[in-house]
Amino acid sequence: MPSAEALKKYAHLLVCGGCNLQPGQELYVSADVTQAPLVRLIVAEAYAAGASNVTSYFTDEQVSRINYDCKSVERFSEFPEWRAVLQNGVAERGAALLFISSEDPMGFAGVDPKKLSAFQVAATKACRAWRDGMDFGRNVWVIAGAASPAWAARVFPDLPEEEAMERLWQAILLTARADGDDPLADWRAHDESFRDRTAWLNQQRFDALRYRNSLGTDLVIGLNPDGLWAGGGETTVSGQRFYPNMPTEEIYTTPDWRRVDGVVVASMPLNHGGALVRDFRVEFKNGRVCAWSAAEGEDILTSIIETDEGAHHLGECALVPYGNPIQRTGVLFLNTLYDENAACHLALGRGFAECVEGGRDLDAEALKERGINDSMTHVDFMIGTADLTITGIKANGEEVPVFVNGVWA
Amino acid sequence: MPSAEALKKYAHLLVCGGCNLQPGQELYVSADVTQAPLVRLIVAEAYAAGASNVTSYFTDEQVSRINYDCKSVERFSEFPEWRAVLQNGVAERGAALLFISSEDPMGFAGVDPKKLSAFQVAATKACRAWRDGMDFGRNVWVIAGAASPAWAARVFPDLPEEEAMERLWQAILLTARADGDDPLADWRAHDESFRDRTAWLNQQRFDALRYRNSLGTDLVIGLNPDGLWAGGGETTVSGQRFYPNMPTEEIYTTPDWRRVDGVVVASMPLNHGGALVRDFRVEFKNGRVCAWSAAEGEDILTSIIETDEGAHHLGECALVPYGNPIQRTGVLFLNTLYDENAACHLALGRGFAECVEGGRDLDAEALKERGINDSMTHVDFMIGTADLTITGIKANGEEVPVFVNGVWA
Repeated sequence: MPSAEALKKYAHLLVCGGCNLQPGQELYVSADVTQAPLVRLIVAEAYAAGASNVTSYFTDEQVSRINYDCKSVERFSEFPEWRAVLQNGVAERGAALLFISSEDPMGFAGVDPKKLSAFQVAATKACRAWRDGMDFGRNVWVIAGAASPAWAARVFPDLPEEEAMERLWQAILLTARADGDDPLADWRAHDESFRDRTAWLNQQRFDALRYRNSLGTDLVIGLNPDGLWAGGGETTVSGQRFYPNMPTEEIYTTPDWRRVDGVVVASMPLNHGGALVRDFRVEFKNGRVCAWSAAEGEDILTSIIETDEGAHHLGECALVPYGNPIQRTGVLFLNTLYDENAACHLALGRGFAECVEGGRDLDAEALKERGINDSMTHVDFMIGTADLTITGIKANGEEVPVFVNGVWA
Repeated sequence: MPSAEALKKYAHLLVCGGCNLQPGQELYVSADVTQAPLVRLIVAEAYAAGASNVTSYFTDEQVSRINYDCKSVERFSEFPEWRAVLQNGVAERGAALLFISSEDPMGFAGVDPKKLSAFQVAATKACRAWRDGMDFGRNVWVIAGAASPAWAARVFPDLPEEEAMERLWQAILLTARADGDDPLADWRAHDESFRDRTAWLNQQRFDALRYRNSLGTDLVIGLNPDGLWAGGGETTVSGQRFYPNMPTEEIYTTPDWRRVDGVVVASMPLNHGGALVRDFRVEFKNGRVCAWSAAEGEDILTSIIETDEGAHHLGECALVPYGNPIQRTGVLFLNTLYDENAACHLALGRGFAECVEGGRDLDAEALKERGINDSMTHVDFMIGTADLTITGIKANGEEVPVFVNGVWA
């Protein structure tokens, strides 16, 4: 475990940096029962920052696992009413939403994937205000990690528990830039650093990106004519700056869901609800997934793609230079929050409204017309390698190198 | 910690004995985050017994404490809507309600008592179906203990943590009759043993009980002409037998709230929401509290009595022989579930509908007319001593010894 001081500094960063919690605002924090010590610090920091109320919601992933094992798939199409009232309620009251991620990457391995996606679909349907609050920039939201014995054991299987926990906490605090003298200032500087690159990308107005590497990826992704690249912090419609992912190293946009062609090969395993998909490839034709295969967990991949029609299309493409701090730790975190920031990635499913001009004022139908995909789900998978080349293609055919050998050209 | 086997046996007793969970029935279990290992076993036992669903609700008492310290009293008059939906929902669906009690007896010491009672009042108002489900025999409910480091440290302040936990768990499993070869059979036998005494008391039709001891207690409590004594297990209106308190050693009734006169001196400290009241006395005139004092925590006692008009009257008198197993452990648990079963006690506040014939079919007004007190609260306090004498007084003036020297006459 990190020192009490280091943990308090992290809690302060999450509340005052990540959430940028305002006096009078509510905070909602969800965490596994193993994270109670961190949650206590977060709750205290929130009141110190002037929170009007803090709602803490604890779950136990072993209890969740027993539920998945013991209940029928039908049961998972019912989202508990009280949880919808809880989640929609805090969202509607403008709460900042803070999610502590500490799950065992294999915690749900072997669970019937139909149960996992039935529950995700039910949750999305029942929690409209909650989802929209995040998707349309009404609520501040932050995902951040915390080490748990189960997670640490998966990442460092050869170390004793205490040492594994120590190593994972170190990597978490380092990559979250929480271990310096002034983490809030470090994050402001980090946030600034994204601005040049997003400005350049937004100026280029690429019509498409072509991805190629030695793994076999050969893919062309169409971009929207008024598409926007984003990264680092975000700003709510009412002007509150926040950092949704801590850590974050990615610059991303939502491509045109109708114009994706070719083959993409994953460069890292995909952890979906605790189940792993390894060594997989996905093929696209006219924007739609037309074939896929995986050496391990193919049924998980199938259930992701078959969640709905929107899950057959891309909702995100993200640029992450090879050799960034997360990738440099050399740790395979088996947690998307970290691993997606280690490498370039794509996502199947829902796109981001804020990735086209004025998108936040549009409904799902209008967004789709503008090229922004809609789906119940959004699943990232890593494709970046040390030899990845990304070429920007303009409408007039001009080609501009974006990534060469895995890093910015 | 007890062995995995002992803990599993306890979980099985709570689910299959205490709750007597039926196939297809739901289970609701609430516990502190420290009790996740026990909750996991309970959830597994519930599904093994055929539960249709298990809802586990975790709280963290340190987070609760921070909330009490940081929010204004006004905030505690608002009960969160989602918790009302949760609690009323499970009650309305006929769930068995299982409460794991492991709280630090001093966890809420120093909290403004107005906040504690404001929250209790708000909870009672918001959770009518939940309260009625328990009060009117619609829902099975069980309170049982589990050792936590904070609780163990209060009970055994001179022992190292591990040894204190060991001792407290031993006392919990022993007094809950969970450590024999067949705990379910032990509980059936224990339940039977209450029947002779409740039958005798119900036959006597005492008009009043007179309490006297050397502490200064000299009190006459009027009983209802059609009052009923109960103890051990209870049965829901639909016929499901259950054990609300594990352990239990008490035989109790609700006296006539209009006929209590004299002075009663507490024989043990009262733990109310984590705050302790010590060495206190309460005086009654014509059924109503007319004076009180305490050497410590008098403000807590005042806030209990001033919760509402009903809190000025008695809702329960319970007979517990001195020298019973809980008292014999010699442990002052600082937890009402245990300490109330160590000694005769009374309660201020709400009475029990089932303690008059046909009472479960009556509303609060009709119950009050029959002598059953109504209040937002119900607070037990211990009065039993080794020299307590209780005399039954019949309507014709005949006197019958009930307790002599602290035990059944």
